[in-house]
Amino acid sequence: MTRTKKRIAVVGYGNVGRHCLDAVLESPDFELAGVVRREAAPAPAELPGVAFATRVDELGEVDGALLACPTRSVPAVARELLAKGIATCDSFDIHGEPLLALRRELGDVAVSAGTRAVISAGWDPGTDSMIRGILELMAPRGLTYTNFGPGMSMGHTVAAKAIPGVKSALSMTLPAGQGVHRRAVYVELEEGADAAEVEAAILRDAYFAHDETRVRFVDDVAALVDTGHGVVLERKGASGRTHNQQFRWEMRIQNPALTAQVMVSALRAAFRQAPGCYTLLELPIADLLPGDRETWIRKLV
Amino acid sequence: MTRTKKRIAVVGYGNVGRHCLDAVLESPDFELAGVVRREAAPAPAELPGVAFATRVDELGEVDGALLACPTRSVPAVARELLAKGIATCDSFDIHGEPLLALRRELGDVAVSAGTRAVISAGWDPGTDSMIRGILELMAPRGLTYTNFGPGMSMGHTVAAKAIPGVKSALSMTLPAGQGVHRRAVYVELEEGADAAEVEAAILRDAYFAHDETRVRFVDDVAALVDTGHGVVLERKGASGRTHNQQFRWEMRIQNPALTAQVMVSALRAAFRQAPGCYTLLELPIADLLPGDRETWIRKLV
Repeated sequence: MTRTKKRIAVVGYGNVGRHCLDAVLESPDFELAGVVRREAAPAPAELPGVAFATRVDELGEVDGALLACPTRSVPAVARELLAKGIATCDSFDIHGEPLLALRRELGDVAVSAGTRAVISAGWDPGTDSMIRGILELMAPRGLTYTNFGPGMSMGHTVAAKAIPGVKSALSMTLPAGQGVHRRAVYVELEEGADAAEVEAAILRDAYFAHDETRVRFVDDVAALVDTGHGVVLERKGASGRTHNQQFRWEMRIQNPALTAQVMVSALRAAFRQAPGCYTLLELPIADLLPGDRETWIRKLV
Repeated sequence: MTRTKKRIAVVGYGNVGRHCLDAVLESPDFELAGVVRREAAPAPAELPGVAFATRVDELGEVDGALLACPTRSVPAVARELLAKGIATCDSFDIHGEPLLALRRELGDVAVSAGTRAVISAGWDPGTDSMIRGILELMAPRGLTYTNFGPGMSMGHTVAAKAIPGVKSALSMTLPAGQGVHRRAVYVELEEGADAAEVEAAILRDAYFAHDETRVRFVDDVAALVDTGHGVVLERKGASGRTHNQQFRWEMRIQNPALTAQVMVSALRAAFRQAPGCYTLLELPIADLLPGDRETWIRKLV
């Protein structure tokens, strides 16, 4: 009997990886092949029956993989899996040239292996990119503002944690309107560290130097952590020769769960494309939804 | 020398047709072939150089057509143009089975003629359908509410005008929250008409019987007409197993200008597809934008 469900591996078991597991298990057309981690570790007791491995080859037949690993390791991991004929989906988040370079590189590998990659399929880049595209096609002239937060920035948090004297840190992105952002960095100092020096080092760091940033010292960073996030996309523009068309997209979401769900939906679309590498801007929306097109046209159009 | 711009005909010269003209003239990749009207009439003095005709064949070479005619005449007009090898785009707005039937029918004609049709490419159905699709892929379980207005409903206005004793009418759609709508019908009576009878006839009409409807009598309906409209789409749902993900799309727009711009963008995408018939849910967003994909990926993703 032919398998009707695609077998999916989750690569990485951090915040996004855990939520990828949930989203695969909830998808009607997918089944979980297992989880690939860098280092061997016993499978968590709360997940009986889930295969954990250090190599994808240990998981049996695998049709597609969700790359829930750090952005900087995405290119190498994707290349390796694509070369094995496994479709990949990631949430690579370095906008601009790095993203275009990855698209070209993985496109070549995917075409050679007769498979597909979808890249940068989180929410920004990702679904926000789709919304920005829809805004452009509705009102080709005008300005779009992307306002993030309030929510935790992973990149800025990692940068703050790397400053000498910082025991733990949390960097919040705060929207100041019209695409301008403020940063609030909550720092737990190492014993004996100099608060003034740490603050100065954070403010000098390339991650923070260009935004209005406030550093606050706290006793317990862990008590502040919440993975909720949000965005407001606004555009005012002209449709044809008619000005003052107004559009607004807003969401308030648990960040890793949304990222994981978008990756799972995008991997579904990957299986439906010709071999190659795609961003969400290049996929028909219907291909990201389970089941047949006519059902969705009846329901959504 | 090969023509680089597609030559576009606008079929119909009502509110949407006039705005199609604007949107074609503002598009970098399109040029206007002319306007097709049912009845011969002198070209408007404010549009020197624009060809008006009663048959598309009088407009020279035509690559694509924007069908700005009433929804009920779309199927016949589209069939005729597609059979000539001209790509079409319409804003057919009868959701559900009629829309699916049109997609199948025009798909057959388009494939035979080696051309493409995009149907139901306004804002609802149209870009709202795309947003509803994105909401589903982000949070597969949950409820989406579509809240229209405040704005003029063309269908309800026409229905109210057809009631005996009504000289002129305007039906406004008012959002009452969670997808529920109220109607406010402004009526100018014919001389000698009975207000109570007219009101009762409106409230009995199939267009109004299912919604809370208020009828008001005014001296001058024309003084109330404004083509502004709007929508709020809301979803609360679960991504994977994480609930309470919250999304909201809102726009406040001049209605015929937005409809025309979406049609023009969708016709652009038509030229980039394999022969067949498509809804906006089935087209990559990048295909609706002028120029090459890499430029848009750099700018939007």
